[in-house]
Amino acid sequence: MSRVFIYDTTLRDGAQTEGISYSVSDKLLIARKLDFLGVDFIEGGWPGSNPKDLEFFHKLKVEKLKTSRLVAFGSTRRKGRTPSKDPIVRALVDAGTEYITIFGKSWDLHVNQVLKVSLDENLKMISDTVRYLCKRGKRVFFDAEHFFDGYRDNAEYALKTLEAALSAGAETVVMCDTNGGTLTSDISRIVAEVKQQTTKAKLGIHTHNDNGMAVANSVTAVQAGCVQVQGTINGYGERCGNADLCAIIPSLVLRLNSECSCGKRLRELTEVSRYVSEVSNMKQQDNQPYVGSSAFSHKAGVHINAMLKTPRSYEHIDPETVGNKRKFLSSELAGKTGILQKAGEISCQLEKDGKNTKKLHQLVQRMELDGYQFEAAGASLELVLRKSLGRYRKFFNLEGFRVIVERRSDGRLISEATIKVNVNGVDEHTASEGDGPVNALDNALRKALMDFYPELGDMHLSDFKVRVIDSKAGTAAKVRVFIESQDKKRSWWTLGVSENIIQASWQALVDSVEYKLLQEREEKKINE
Amino acid sequence: MSRVFIYDTTLRDGAQTEGISYSVSDKLLIARKLDFLGVDFIEGGWPGSNPKDLEFFHKLKVEKLKTSRLVAFGSTRRKGRTPSKDPIVRALVDAGTEYITIFGKSWDLHVNQVLKVSLDENLKMISDTVRYLCKRGKRVFFDAEHFFDGYRDNAEYALKTLEAALSAGAETVVMCDTNGGTLTSDISRIVAEVKQQTTKAKLGIHTHNDNGMAVANSVTAVQAGCVQVQGTINGYGERCGNADLCAIIPSLVLRLNSECSCGKRLRELTEVSRYVSEVSNMKQQDNQPYVGSSAFSHKAGVHINAMLKTPRSYEHIDPETVGNKRKFLSSELAGKTGILQKAGEISCQLEKDGKNTKKLHQLVQRMELDGYQFEAAGASLELVLRKSLGRYRKFFNLEGFRVIVERRSDGRLISEATIKVNVNGVDEHTASEGDGPVNALDNALRKALMDFYPELGDMHLSDFKVRVIDSKAGTAAKVRVFIESQDKKRSWWTLGVSENIIQASWQALVDSVEYKLLQEREEKKINE
Repeated sequence: MSRVFIYDTTLRDGAQTEGISYSVSDKLLIARKLDFLGVDFIEGGWPGSNPKDLEFFHKLKVEKLKTSRLVAFGSTRRKGRTPSKDPIVRALVDAGTEYITIFGKSWDLHVNQVLKVSLDENLKMISDTVRYLCKRGKRVFFDAEHFFDGYRDNAEYALKTLEAALSAGAETVVMCDTNGGTLTSDISRIVAEVKQQTTKAKLGIHTHNDNGMAVANSVTAVQAGCVQVQGTINGYGERCGNADLCAIIPSLVLRLNSECSCGKRLRELTEVSRYVSEVSNMKQQDNQPYVGSSAFSHKAGVHINAMLKTPRSYEHIDPETVGNKRKFLSSELAGKTGILQKAGEISCQLEKDGKNTKKLHQLVQRMELDGYQFEAAGASLELVLRKSLGRYRKFFNLEGFRVIVERRSDGRLISEATIKVNVNGVDEHTASEGDGPVNALDNALRKALMDFYPELGDMHLSDFKVRVIDSKAGTAAKVRVFIESQDKKRSWWTLGVSENIIQASWQALVDSVEYKLLQEREEKKINE
Repeated sequence: MSRVFIYDTTLRDGAQTEGISYSVSDKLLIARKLDFLGVDFIEGGWPGSNPKDLEFFHKLKVEKLKTSRLVAFGSTRRKGRTPSKDPIVRALVDAGTEYITIFGKSWDLHVNQVLKVSLDENLKMISDTVRYLCKRGKRVFFDAEHFFDGYRDNAEYALKTLEAALSAGAETVVMCDTNGGTLTSDISRIVAEVKQQTTKAKLGIHTHNDNGMAVANSVTAVQAGCVQVQGTINGYGERCGNADLCAIIPSLVLRLNSECSCGKRLRELTEVSRYVSEVSNMKQQDNQPYVGSSAFSHKAGVHINAMLKTPRSYEHIDPETVGNKRKFLSSELAGKTGILQKAGEISCQLEKDGKNTKKLHQLVQRMELDGYQFEAAGASLELVLRKSLGRYRKFFNLEGFRVIVERRSDGRLISEATIKVNVNGVDEHTASEGDGPVNALDNALRKALMDFYPELGDMHLSDFKVRVIDSKAGTAAKVRVFIESQDKKRSWWTLGVSENIIQASWQALVDSVEYKLLQEREEKKINE
């Protein structure tokens, strides 16, 4: 069991993702969650490049983390300056963290063509900066940017950059595959060679996913001798992203038996992934390894049958180890098994050949013939079961709705929905505009219900899919609408089917709202 | 340069993705695209388990592929049957392909606990089935399911299953990491060991992505001696998906210098990925290695500055090698080739650096930033070009439309569209009901135009797809509507983009009608 240190850079490298833009309070939320997970290091940002980042460091200085160490990130001094006179280096010191990560060039191409300094001057920029920070009591990590590309072009020089940092006092030197194109076989060979030549140094690995190998490259680097792994939650990062810690941590703990401080919290991993995706306003990937909502979904009939005999047959780990859940997608193939399982989830023990099971099975089959597809809409399936098994309550009655889309002669476009619902005997008749007919209807429904059920305020719709079932009928075809909703705790899919896209969307919207309200009530019951 | 064979299983294993459900015509579209890309083998489906799959094989028997070989997939005979009496094996023969892939168990755990037959009987099931098919003139691949798990538990037996297939005539034996949990280091070691013990055999690799290593595992297996790689476009597949061929192919061609039949079409890879995601009605992952829309997006300022000095500084390959584009956040540098080509199709010879080309290029880029995606909607792109190059005429003016969907208190649903158009100075104001709002609008538009353009009577809409572009905005998200239309001679795709699904559908409907009317006039001119 070797100790491996997890270094999270979601807040710095992850923030480079197209579409992500963290506020200071977003960063605080994520930092607290990472602290809860127990990663060893949290890279908080680059205080020299961003005033927001400095604010973040100052706030966390007051609040303090329980488990993780906060790290400030920055570059070496610039050419021709001394570290003490370089504002970027000084901002790093001002961040007030015990740990600092400095990145510098290790590829001679970059030194010559991008920095445009001599190879020697670059080595001095590294050692001067590391030495300056160490003297101020900082513990310093050195990120050797483009290390693997550099090593392939000029191994001797790349090694010299590591030595420059080490001899100046760096605690760990981190080899970065900055462009993300290095093959796993090269990572394995190069890390082993470096290990041999810097016997006493602690080595780290930082990979990007441009060739789809970032996770394998990180784990392989640990096998070859690295003791620090840098990555991000959900693999966020520029271009194709950084190495995904949500995939790396379980492989280290469960396959390599590495000692990781967050190994104790492995069961929280799925929730952490979902939480960070929420705060980042990014949809969590359904097929994300270990933590995705489909990661343990079984669709093929032969697989489901085998799984019932022995779960190991089609699962590489028990999903609960990482806080995820097994799903049997209820398609025609899956038959009664899926229904029994879903009923179990709402604490109804049905018998395989019981009357209720048969009735439900027929109902689901009939709906599937009609175009429903429950495999990807577990929340709607749950509602069908609840209704049939008497574990459902109605939260409102629809009296009617009307949706109008009008394109006027001046080209202006108006979408308006009016809706009339009845909640516990109280009529609510209201209207709302929207960016389109479904959005208008969604807005009107929430407006009508919000006074009665304020908890609807913390859910939102995160995805919306439309599938034409019988495409040959063209615009008269039946459509299947899937809606994904999420709140802080969970995400769920509902569906509706109709020749009328508005009606199909309406069904999915209503299921989504009812599911949320039922879940909240179930949880209250458990907590009481 | 070693030859590596690419084996695509998008249509079989990829179809197991949660949310994917291919019709026969979807499968035909994808098969033609794979044939265009030039993959060596296309696994079309499992004719024994699915009547739709048999129909697909029969259709492709008539149509014939240009480059790729079609493969039917199925299991070994069941216990206690002879292959000739097993309907599943016979359905395989009936599929009429030259190549057949048979999967069988190689993990003793599965033989004992799932199949519940003796280890010897399992070997016979494999060899009997392979021999039976070879005698019928088939060329047979053997997929050794769970090979790596099996090898870890009982290497001797796992090897015996490969030998059973080889001695019965299998051309290639494929080692499958069915549960997707094998580490790259184990793949490398086990493939090398198998290679040593089956010196003359051709070996293949089939991996799943449950630990995030499928791509690295596939490429590593080739380095260790495999000559066939199985995977899917975009990594579709059950749970966390199969190995993504869009990442594997470029690494094989560009990094290992492997000889791949689709190496010649590498520049089409991004388009193929996008096309398959459209037909599958799945959003393409922005950060997908090589082909994702963010795969070469640069956001960090220091990166962009360095990129301007030398592109190699932050890119592992030139994006054009795989048909992708570099993005500097706001300023896109799109290729002009597509525009020149489309202009050629309407007999306009544009010059690469001409003023018109530049103008069109900017226009198309602007529209793409807005969410248009012309790859799958050639007719709409043609209309954009025609409008800009003065090769367009207007057939009608829209004065306005209004669409109403009303759900009354008795549950009845009404969809009605009113439309006012002007054709050659004549106003036409009409209304129509429909099965939904888009159908009502479609009906009303045709009704309004039919008297003026009776040729519209022989076209109909054959497919209708809706894709949410920015799914995070939920029901307020921008949607992209694709409409496929056909008449006796041709089929064509058009698109519209708007936050309002009715407006997006309207654009696609209008493009569809205008394209039809323009084509008819062009043809008349040629015939005259």
